[in-house]
Amino acid sequence: MSNPIKKLAILGSTGSIGQQVLDIVRDFPDRFTIIGLAGGKNTSLLIEQISQFKPELVYSYHKLNLPDNVKLSSMEEIVTHPEVDMVVVATSGKVGLAPTLAAIQSGKKIALANKEVLVMAGEIIMTEAKLRKVQILPVDSEHSAIYQCLRGEAGEITRLILTASGGPFYHQPEILAKVTVDDALQHPTWKMGKKVTIDSATLMNKGLEAIEASWLFSIPLNKIEIVIHPQSVIHSLVEFVDGSIKAQLSMPDMRFAIQYALAYPERLANKKLPRLNFAQLNSLTFETLNYSMFPCLQLALDAGKQGGTYPAVLCAADEIAVQLFLEQRIDFPQIAEIIYKTISAHHGIGNPTMDDILAADKWARDTASNLVKVNS
Amino acid sequence: MSNPIKKLAILGSTGSIGQQVLDIVRDFPDRFTIIGLAGGKNTSLLIEQISQFKPELVYSYHKLNLPDNVKLSSMEEIVTHPEVDMVVVATSGKVGLAPTLAAIQSGKKIALANKEVLVMAGEIIMTEAKLRKVQILPVDSEHSAIYQCLRGEAGEITRLILTASGGPFYHQPEILAKVTVDDALQHPTWKMGKKVTIDSATLMNKGLEAIEASWLFSIPLNKIEIVIHPQSVIHSLVEFVDGSIKAQLSMPDMRFAIQYALAYPERLANKKLPRLNFAQLNSLTFETLNYSMFPCLQLALDAGKQGGTYPAVLCAADEIAVQLFLEQRIDFPQIAEIIYKTISAHHGIGNPTMDDILAADKWARDTASNLVKVNS
Repeated sequence: MSNPIKKLAILGSTGSIGQQVLDIVRDFPDRFTIIGLAGGKNTSLLIEQISQFKPELVYSYHKLNLPDNVKLSSMEEIVTHPEVDMVVVATSGKVGLAPTLAAIQSGKKIALANKEVLVMAGEIIMTEAKLRKVQILPVDSEHSAIYQCLRGEAGEITRLILTASGGPFYHQPEILAKVTVDDALQHPTWKMGKKVTIDSATLMNKGLEAIEASWLFSIPLNKIEIVIHPQSVIHSLVEFVDGSIKAQLSMPDMRFAIQYALAYPERLANKKLPRLNFAQLNSLTFETLNYSMFPCLQLALDAGKQGGTYPAVLCAADEIAVQLFLEQRIDFPQIAEIIYKTISAHHGIGNPTMDDILAADKWARDTASNLVKVNS
Repeated sequence: MSNPIKKLAILGSTGSIGQQVLDIVRDFPDRFTIIGLAGGKNTSLLIEQISQFKPELVYSYHKLNLPDNVKLSSMEEIVTHPEVDMVVVATSGKVGLAPTLAAIQSGKKIALANKEVLVMAGEIIMTEAKLRKVQILPVDSEHSAIYQCLRGEAGEITRLILTASGGPFYHQPEILAKVTVDDALQHPTWKMGKKVTIDSATLMNKGLEAIEASWLFSIPLNKIEIVIHPQSVIHSLVEFVDGSIKAQLSMPDMRFAIQYALAYPERLANKKLPRLNFAQLNSLTFETLNYSMFPCLQLALDAGKQGGTYPAVLCAADEIAVQLFLEQRIDFPQIAEIIYKTISAHHGIGNPTMDDILAADKWARDTASNLVKVNS
């Protein structure tokens, strides 16, 4: 029996993850087809993608002349299109929030690469997904590892152990104060977009992942451990109630997690993905995380524990701060400073509605931006 | 809903694994009860076990006065007793063969710690288990790791990676020629019985495990890789067709695998089992196996590939050779020599019956013993 073709909508198709999603689609033309693409600012790439994958519906950030058989659409129209089986949310920041909720409400499977969706609105998204019996398949390597380790398991989880490469500065704390944009964009193991790469250097990324994992796997944050593992080969681990631990490993390449989410529950043979060689591997190391070196991580975990609108404020302030750093308007340590000041000024709301969350996001963006305007 | 008590028969209850099985039974008096015990030469321990666990049926190697309510029985009587749910085969050598087959034919679940059962008669045992839909749960840490990694997975396996501590001599090849019995009994990571400890020092153990894994998981030997991992923390790994690898980890303690097999499909909380601490773990290392240092391993893999009666001859010759070494009648390198000479003299039979296998075993024991008598 041959498997039916899965029909995909991809939000954020021109980003780093989106491009790798399309690599996998290209590898399996008999398994995946594209119904809709939503692209970002890279319009020329979006045009290329349209001509290659021939979607019916397209959203574009910039104005675009489309072929006659392609319909310009909103993200919501794309994700709710009746033919779509699975929506890949590969946007970054809050942009993915509303379309993800709309996709879940239409009963579409979700492949989720956008951390902020669950960090900002975990309660709303997970409640809706449970109600509609919608699968949310993580695309992040850490969450995919945990998802894979939990396959077939029904027992209680006692610990999730998220691995962190530590980013480019883990072994050079002395340079943290004077990190340049170019320094911060050199990630030792993963090839990713700019925002995520900076978040990896501050370890904000790991904090967002912990909050996301907490929602995705219904685990309190105090049962999530973060351990430095510079090789990025063990992508994360799960400890069960009997003390046994399962881990998922591969070469550090996002396509493993992407392909797993797209093909789930199947595993597809893909010769293009690099194989682990244990003889060459030599040594997998683990180090205790030094939280004091990475204030952004602690801010994220604290915001996660506070809950309510605090994680949304965290995400918004981080997005502004990272943008300011990339524009060289603030230095590296000021990223944490801006986030800290914004969170400190926030009056949180418990059990927030989507409107509360979006209002907190707007407030945090303004507050974070003003911190720099006032200073400069 | 409370789970029903599992009723166990334990073959080899006085051995190292048998004692640890009873540790787990002792930890969960509301989950496991003992119907039958079969003990070895340590009669005083068997008497203690009888008084503590109150089995209905007992087999003893030596003559024994039993309490009135305990029936002296053969191993076959014990494993086929109608009340028994699961038979734990913790004997060593060929002793476990006939009772394991009898247990499967009676539809009992099997927890298998005796490697030789599948190495000698894998085809017969697995065919019977499939026919009767009997679960064979591995108790070895390597096979338990693989079994755990395969939970919930239906996809094709491309590689099994068995980890090997390398035994006490892996980093001192210069002493291999003059190893004493005391040296060989000092295993760096695992506490085990004498025969298994010597087999770990020669790496024969890893060869037997590869053959066993091949039967248990229906994988050809050429898809089974062995990698040196001195810390014995990653117990083995599975690579799936998509290149993703899953591993199972724990502190090196046999009770993890024992408890997993006894409780399967459940995982039971057991505070007595030591937890892994990733901060203390520091480094997990991997090294390419140097086959030339360990001729027993190559002999085992070759016998596994030849199939038929060769693996039975391998096991029998190894049992004799290890016994001779423990009695200080041969030196360490002669273990491999005796096995090699015995296998070389054997005329194998394909698709052997149980009688063929037992005849090959008898022939190999005589041949291996005579090699030393002739020499001395």
